[in-house]
Amino acid sequence: MMSQPNRLSLLHAASAISDGQLTPETLLASCLDRIAERDGDVGAWMHINTDSAKARAGNPVTGPLSGLPIGIKDLIDTVDMPTGYGSSIYEGHQPAQDATCVATIRNAGGIVLGKTVSTEFAYFQPGKTANPNDLGRTPGGSSSGSAAAVADYHVPAALGTQTAGSIIRPASYCGVVGYKPSYGFLPLTGIRPLAPSMDHLGVMTRTVKDAGFLASILGRRPELDIHKDSDNFVPTIGFCQTPQWDAAEASTQSLIEDAAIRLGKAGAKVSSFALPDIFETLANAHGIAMDYEVSFTGLYDVSNHPDQVSAKFRERFDAGMKVLTSDYDKALDQAKQSRTALSDAMVDCDILICPSAPGEAPVGLNATGDPVFNRIWTFSGVPCINIPGLSGPNNMPVGLQVIGRFGDDARMLKAADWISRHL
Amino acid sequence: MMSQPNRLSLLHAASAISDGQLTPETLLASCLDRIAERDGDVGAWMHINTDSAKARAGNPVTGPLSGLPIGIKDLIDTVDMPTGYGSSIYEGHQPAQDATCVATIRNAGGIVLGKTVSTEFAYFQPGKTANPNDLGRTPGGSSSGSAAAVADYHVPAALGTQTAGSIIRPASYCGVVGYKPSYGFLPLTGIRPLAPSMDHLGVMTRTVKDAGFLASILGRRPELDIHKDSDNFVPTIGFCQTPQWDAAEASTQSLIEDAAIRLGKAGAKVSSFALPDIFETLANAHGIAMDYEVSFTGLYDVSNHPDQVSAKFRERFDAGMKVLTSDYDKALDQAKQSRTALSDAMVDCDILICPSAPGEAPVGLNATGDPVFNRIWTFSGVPCINIPGLSGPNNMPVGLQVIGRFGDDARMLKAADWISRHL
Repeated sequence: MMSQPNRLSLLHAASAISDGQLTPETLLASCLDRIAERDGDVGAWMHINTDSAKARAGNPVTGPLSGLPIGIKDLIDTVDMPTGYGSSIYEGHQPAQDATCVATIRNAGGIVLGKTVSTEFAYFQPGKTANPNDLGRTPGGSSSGSAAAVADYHVPAALGTQTAGSIIRPASYCGVVGYKPSYGFLPLTGIRPLAPSMDHLGVMTRTVKDAGFLASILGRRPELDIHKDSDNFVPTIGFCQTPQWDAAEASTQSLIEDAAIRLGKAGAKVSSFALPDIFETLANAHGIAMDYEVSFTGLYDVSNHPDQVSAKFRERFDAGMKVLTSDYDKALDQAKQSRTALSDAMVDCDILICPSAPGEAPVGLNATGDPVFNRIWTFSGVPCINIPGLSGPNNMPVGLQVIGRFGDDARMLKAADWISRHL
Repeated sequence: MMSQPNRLSLLHAASAISDGQLTPETLLASCLDRIAERDGDVGAWMHINTDSAKARAGNPVTGPLSGLPIGIKDLIDTVDMPTGYGSSIYEGHQPAQDATCVATIRNAGGIVLGKTVSTEFAYFQPGKTANPNDLGRTPGGSSSGSAAAVADYHVPAALGTQTAGSIIRPASYCGVVGYKPSYGFLPLTGIRPLAPSMDHLGVMTRTVKDAGFLASILGRRPELDIHKDSDNFVPTIGFCQTPQWDAAEASTQSLIEDAAIRLGKAGAKVSSFALPDIFETLANAHGIAMDYEVSFTGLYDVSNHPDQVSAKFRERFDAGMKVLTSDYDKALDQAKQSRTALSDAMVDCDILICPSAPGEAPVGLNATGDPVFNRIWTFSGVPCINIPGLSGPNNMPVGLQVIGRFGDDARMLKAADWISRHL
């Protein structure tokens, strides 16, 4: 009898099930036990589909995810569970279909266990989730519940989305792997849009290999499943301070610098990497473009339910209404150019490393922290992943962010996997 | 008393209302009369919101569209009307919110009169609509109902979408203006995705000025509203056969060639334009990428309601499932490059002209015609517009298509307006 199967990685659980060492029912029961024990404090879940999950576990569908319970951010439509988009406007709303990613998980045999807390419309107004490592601190956002649920061993994997820093930041704060693939790699159909030209679907897991495995299924991109072939790849690493370096706490700067030295000692070639100039103002351009697009995606809600929209959301919406279209067009063009410029500049390195967030998860649950280290990569559309394993001054998780060239996700995942074993 | 106000253009109706010559109630009544008289034959509408429209007309909201009735393609979510996406799977489905474009129309004072017929999920399986110029011929697709409703004077304007040729082709077959703006110019939030990287929202109207006016409101892009300043712009025109020229009927080739000569005589500089080589295989690349994306957007429906998906849709879905991801990535990259290449190649001309469709609307209602003259422009994301006014051998409408550089929609609209007055 395997103890605590809820703590297995996604791939280990898959192979234990496939080898007959573990049944989907036992795995599900241990996840549900953990949720019952912890979720009153953590608040990762909006809705759990216990009966339907048990029925699926008792009669599992064949496929690569057979019998594996997965959490779905409540920004993502599910045909059998209410989907609230983090807003009271949509409390109890029942979509007429599954999002493509949800349908893919079901077709692959996965168990859609429930819906995890999102901030309001995936922007800044927090939901009820606490950081499982310290209940007085934010889990980050907007994929708050997915990060907390995976970190706290409720499920081995969950779906998240990122438009600014909504996967990498909560992954860093909670201490899990968060992977945002290249723009367009994973399907957004059935996911509430926030800023469509920079919205990404991604995954939260406890290992890099799990992240690649799950994403490979969601995007039908087999090359992302690196779990069989990555062990011998030692990456050439560019250490990238980014234009936002000064926003990192001194302790974070030291952690990342020390990590770079350790990775060098472990065999990686590490050198300093200077971003192309076009990245200097890209974070600001991202904010302009995001606000602008939010003033479209949020229009129905702000116009028709103004009393149910948070002041934080309204502030960004109003700012977006004032953005000049010409400034928006320029911002998009800058993002497009940055993608090419980065590929050109990375000729001598496989991946970049930089902070995932300024530091540990901030104290308090009224804000979700700052996506300052995420904006440029999200807007550029390049792949990025948070690797947990470092600890800050309060013994809270601090993540290392790994960045790849656009479309070069497989290499980035292999590099991240090596780094996760030598961090 | 104005006779037949339902035949007024959008801008003329707006100014008649604003001058007090016409009331929204009279305009609406004439539209409803026309629909009552004709829609049994034409079948443009899925749903009409008579009571709500009358209430709005009796108490009009102030704004640039005050009191103007507009049709909404039934691929677009409406909070107060069922939205069926052209599929029996979603018959009676009631969205929880308005699409952004619908909310924009309501905020601007427009009257959302009803939902117009879409083909199944905006792909090839036709709905019930007939061509108002000849009820035995297709209106084209997928924006079948919107094109027919505007052509047949049910409403002065309607919304359409285009992923291959779903605005330009039905506009050409029915004899109306159809405008597909640059990719990303108009918001897609709340519109059922077909192939997100090439889905576009656009408009159907009876004049070029109306198209620019309505799009300027939907996209908050004032420069598209050319109705006050376009009269003195005489465009430099590139006559572009496109790689698909041989697919045009001989009569269509002659019509377009003669039009080019007439436009030259009217004062435009017209010269032959050779597309960059990258366009040679772009139509094929579009088909590959579209099928691939459809195999994601259609996944829930094909997996869960296979008996309610047409054979035509299923065929494209299955083809998309077999597309190699590497071929898809290459196709997207080709589209991106084509956009830049076209801007560079158009240095000596303001716009291009080419056919909108191979010829007149085909006989029969079991198919919606061929988007062969639309694929390259849609995939490239450049603005295009159908100008009616030519007639084929059976006295059916044949459209002239005008193409602009990416992002240069205002110039294209001014050129199209001039062309529409000298065609």
